[in-house]
Amino acid sequence: MPDTEFAGRFLGVLGGMGPMASAVFMVRLTALTNADSDQHHVPTILWSDPRIPDRPAGHAGTGADPFPWMLNGVRHMERAGAGAIAIPCNTAHLWYEQLAASTSLKVLHIVRSVIDDLRRSGITRGRIGLLGTATTLSSGLYQRELEACGYDSMLLEADELLRYCAEAIRLVKLNQAEAALDPAAHCVQLLRQRGADAVILGCTELPLALPPLARPAQGVAVVDSIDALALAALEWHHGS
Amino acid sequence: MPDTEFAGRFLGVLGGMGPMASAVFMVRLTALTNADSDQHHVPTILWSDPRIPDRPAGHAGTGADPFPWMLNGVRHMERAGAGAIAIPCNTAHLWYEQLAASTSLKVLHIVRSVIDDLRRSGITRGRIGLLGTATTLSSGLYQRELEACGYDSMLLEADELLRYCAEAIRLVKLNQAEAALDPAAHCVQLLRQRGADAVILGCTELPLALPPLARPAQGVAVVDSIDALALAALEWHHGS
Repeated sequence: MPDTEFAGRFLGVLGGMGPMASAVFMVRLTALTNADSDQHHVPTILWSDPRIPDRPAGHAGTGADPFPWMLNGVRHMERAGAGAIAIPCNTAHLWYEQLAASTSLKVLHIVRSVIDDLRRSGITRGRIGLLGTATTLSSGLYQRELEACGYDSMLLEADELLRYCAEAIRLVKLNQAEAALDPAAHCVQLLRQRGADAVILGCTELPLALPPLARPAQGVAVVDSIDALALAALEWHHGS
Repeated sequence: MPDTEFAGRFLGVLGGMGPMASAVFMVRLTALTNADSDQHHVPTILWSDPRIPDRPAGHAGTGADPFPWMLNGVRHMERAGAGAIAIPCNTAHLWYEQLAASTSLKVLHIVRSVIDDLRRSGITRGRIGLLGTATTLSSGLYQRELEACGYDSMLLEADELLRYCAEAIRLVKLNQAEAALDPAAHCVQLLRQRGADAVILGCTELPLALPPLARPAQGVAVVDSIDALALAALEWHHGS
């Protein structure tokens, strides 16, 4: 019979931002789990609500506020028995403090997960190139955490971000991940040429544009915010 | 603000059987959706509970009964506001009648979804080769539905199923999908050589072993039970 005492060990995933990013998060969570049978994987509730209003527009005040929708998802997952929340959307972390203050559940932080992953890869200092939505980058979400941990951060120019990075994100959201490879790789190359020691794919659409097999050819360490968050979730699961 | 009247239009996915199959179901559901923004995708709650006991062992009476665990997932999704349930596991459909009788929600049927997909592909008669777990195949789950719809079904020999089909499923569950390609493709080839007009990947691990890109080279129509169920879910979403 179902073990009700186990309920609090379900991982809750606040997803749908976008829906492909959260679906791929589930794939990567499973692939990164060291398991020899179904029964050793992480019990997970994915609340995939693609109706959550656009985060950049909400942050700019030009679109609906996504926060009540995110909180609605968290409440559903609380009732379903989640013990911690992962949010596979970087821009959504602009509401992290507000969300974490609204629930007693542990909320994993995607930026801190990425920094843990940088360290896990042996990169403990240096210049870290950042890719993400214009909203994530202009908010300083990554820069503050990186600088607090002794890294320097570097960005592309605004016109380059719009032309290549935003374009790659847009194509993934249109289910055209293959077409997104070139603009995403171009961003990584620009950052590499300008001296980045690693590049963070700081939008959960970007790992879909530049999948794991395309990364070794980039000539620079690439840190994937989906994988980093999945690894943080696995750490929570094993520690809980 | 979240539209509570929309709650019943969430798709509920009873997953974790296995966890990779339900994660890939989420990816395929998203990829098969014709959407030009996040907000046009299907709101979905995935209950991924890999603790659900092994279905073949449960059916044979040699392992714990998975039914109470499946029902537990359905109850959680009912409370969270799901309007229909999809179960991306073929063998779990041995408990379909029992589960459908236990909930007022519509429960999509993976075998009927596969037959709809055969027809969608223009295959309205002929000999249909079946791959799946020994439990699914010996139960007649597919054979009964196919014969009721005017198809003939054909199977591999028991030793071939064990050596190639069960092996491909086992490797996917070990996160070794690449190694699963050869045994899965061998099954399809044996069925093709013996006159199959189409082959059904009637276990949700098999589409991971033989991914879409590997199918055109098989020389026979391959019907994917994950995609078929995702298409049925999209039909429900658009009709509801």
